[in-house]
Amino acid sequence: MFETPAYAAADATAPLAPTTIQRRPPGPSEVLIDILYCGVCHSDLHQVRDEWGGSIFPMVPGHEIVGRIAQVGSAVTAFSVGDAVGVGCFVDSCRTCPQCRAGEEQFCDEGMTSTYNAMARDGSGPTYGGYSTRITVDAAYVLRIPDGLPLDAAAPLLCAGITTYSPLRHFGVAPGDDVAVVGLGGLGHMAVKFAVAMGARVTVLSSSESKRADALALGAHAFAATRDKATFKALAKSFDYIVDSVSAEHDYNAYLSLLRVDGTMILVGIPEVPAPVAAGALIMQRRRLVGSLIGGIRQTQEMLEFCAEHGIVSDIERIGIADIETAYARMRKGDVRYRFVIDIETLRR
Amino acid sequence: MFETPAYAAADATAPLAPTTIQRRPPGPSEVLIDILYCGVCHSDLHQVRDEWGGSIFPMVPGHEIVGRIAQVGSAVTAFSVGDAVGVGCFVDSCRTCPQCRAGEEQFCDEGMTSTYNAMARDGSGPTYGGYSTRITVDAAYVLRIPDGLPLDAAAPLLCAGITTYSPLRHFGVAPGDDVAVVGLGGLGHMAVKFAVAMGARVTVLSSSESKRADALALGAHAFAATRDKATFKALAKSFDYIVDSVSAEHDYNAYLSLLRVDGTMILVGIPEVPAPVAAGALIMQRRRLVGSLIGGIRQTQEMLEFCAEHGIVSDIERIGIADIETAYARMRKGDVRYRFVIDIETLRR
Repeated sequence: MFETPAYAAADATAPLAPTTIQRRPPGPSEVLIDILYCGVCHSDLHQVRDEWGGSIFPMVPGHEIVGRIAQVGSAVTAFSVGDAVGVGCFVDSCRTCPQCRAGEEQFCDEGMTSTYNAMARDGSGPTYGGYSTRITVDAAYVLRIPDGLPLDAAAPLLCAGITTYSPLRHFGVAPGDDVAVVGLGGLGHMAVKFAVAMGARVTVLSSSESKRADALALGAHAFAATRDKATFKALAKSFDYIVDSVSAEHDYNAYLSLLRVDGTMILVGIPEVPAPVAAGALIMQRRRLVGSLIGGIRQTQEMLEFCAEHGIVSDIERIGIADIETAYARMRKGDVRYRFVIDIETLRR
Repeated sequence: MFETPAYAAADATAPLAPTTIQRRPPGPSEVLIDILYCGVCHSDLHQVRDEWGGSIFPMVPGHEIVGRIAQVGSAVTAFSVGDAVGVGCFVDSCRTCPQCRAGEEQFCDEGMTSTYNAMARDGSGPTYGGYSTRITVDAAYVLRIPDGLPLDAAAPLLCAGITTYSPLRHFGVAPGDDVAVVGLGGLGHMAVKFAVAMGARVTVLSSSESKRADALALGAHAFAATRDKATFKALAKSFDYIVDSVSAEHDYNAYLSLLRVDGTMILVGIPEVPAPVAAGALIMQRRRLVGSLIGGIRQTQEMLEFCAEHGIVSDIERIGIADIETAYARMRKGDVRYRFVIDIETLRR
């Protein structure tokens, strides 16, 4: 086993602190990755504070991992030492259920094995994430980072990126479609970039007028403040798609009213409390309210190629590992444009 | 104008009573229909009691109309005197918006003109429905009843039928799919017949065990009582589609949990109070919650041909027009298997 520096929370109330974890040498189908960057996802914070319940401690968060191959197992042909690679939200799944066979491992019948805060399928104990200097992963769950993508800003593509790319593709956003993005945070800003690159006409809907300049700078064609009730009248039946990235409580019916006939509202944010949905809001224009969860390995690779082709990465703020608690505090306030990425070199010193 | 016997409500508290209305002679593109049967829809009751607001009185309800052509306008080529025809939920629309041009007049940008309780587009006043002996309708909004369908039991196809047929087709139910039908009433019993005829494996979910025998007799392959909480565990992730015909308050999230990955729950019932929807219930299996509203003229005709081909009609209880208030009272209690149909001959005597 390899001694590996990491940052871990001892329990739900403890701040993250330096520690050492063990990583296994790569088996025949596995690779060992030297981690260079790890994005900081809201779900890191939720899980490290046990806000969703069932957290496993000590916990090493992080599932937006980018690094370089340090070692390959004897049966690995897809990767070579030195390759730039990524690891996203999961590192394993059953591989035999219909979803795994379809390359949609995120919906594995037995449950995907999360990159951290999960028990490994081989019974070896908990998984540990990217707030660490190395990780051993089966090559089938490793992504190739295409040439030309900056490795730090590519890290958030592995979660925030695929979470927004996948539903835009799956639900069929096409050139000329009118797409609204609700909420301009880590997810929302990626949704804007992807929808614009797919040729859609993109409107950002945000409670705060302060996001207008950013929205337009990100490529959005229009912006509307949702604090102004007139927005909902002015934009009634205007959109083919709405990507709703907001996890604070909000009125789904008001947003549904902005969809045209056969329009689709895609939920990628999870408010704590279920939101009332009026059947009539769906029935009257045959609207669809749908959810989407990250994406499979195949589609994540496709997304990375799309990003390379279109020059898309996340807007990031690089931090040292020692600043993680400060970053969490700022994230709570929505004070990040638009993703913190940990420079894992700061964990090696 | 023609003097036409009808049953009307003078206001929201008045019982329906005999009256006389005026029908216009058919214009060049119109037909005059001698009405033979009219189905009794729940929405008749809601509107005649002004439970949805905005009702126009006096009101002659009825939008499941079957009769025979009595007279044709000079430009009408599609119909001849004596033809068996139907009129459903609407008798006009703008004819120029994208939805009208696509044959989905129910989603007309200017709003479809309902068969009753609406203002005619020509400014001639309110529309009056099928609780009357004759109706004049533009031929473009008239359906042909195929040979072989009994005219009385065909009447409910014009609303209950198309309301359930349309989403099964639109959302792509295919042979071998697992379809659950929630609620076995006027809509639900039609959904069972259609889904079975489309080759799906159909399960009826009903609060009352008393519907089991009926469900199986209608062709359903299975039945489960929803009062038993174990049902929701046993059937978790079992269905590709759920057709939810219930308009009483119920837990959408519990039903969503019965859908597989990419499953679709179709709302055709409208509960009075919006139902809480947990984003996670949609996100975790990429589920879809959708609504559907009747169907356009083209698809309604397609549905009628499908019914003729598969021998499908509504299960009905024929009543005289004088029994309409009794029928309404029984409908309130869910005491109808599965649709009242008024024999309009009883209005001619």
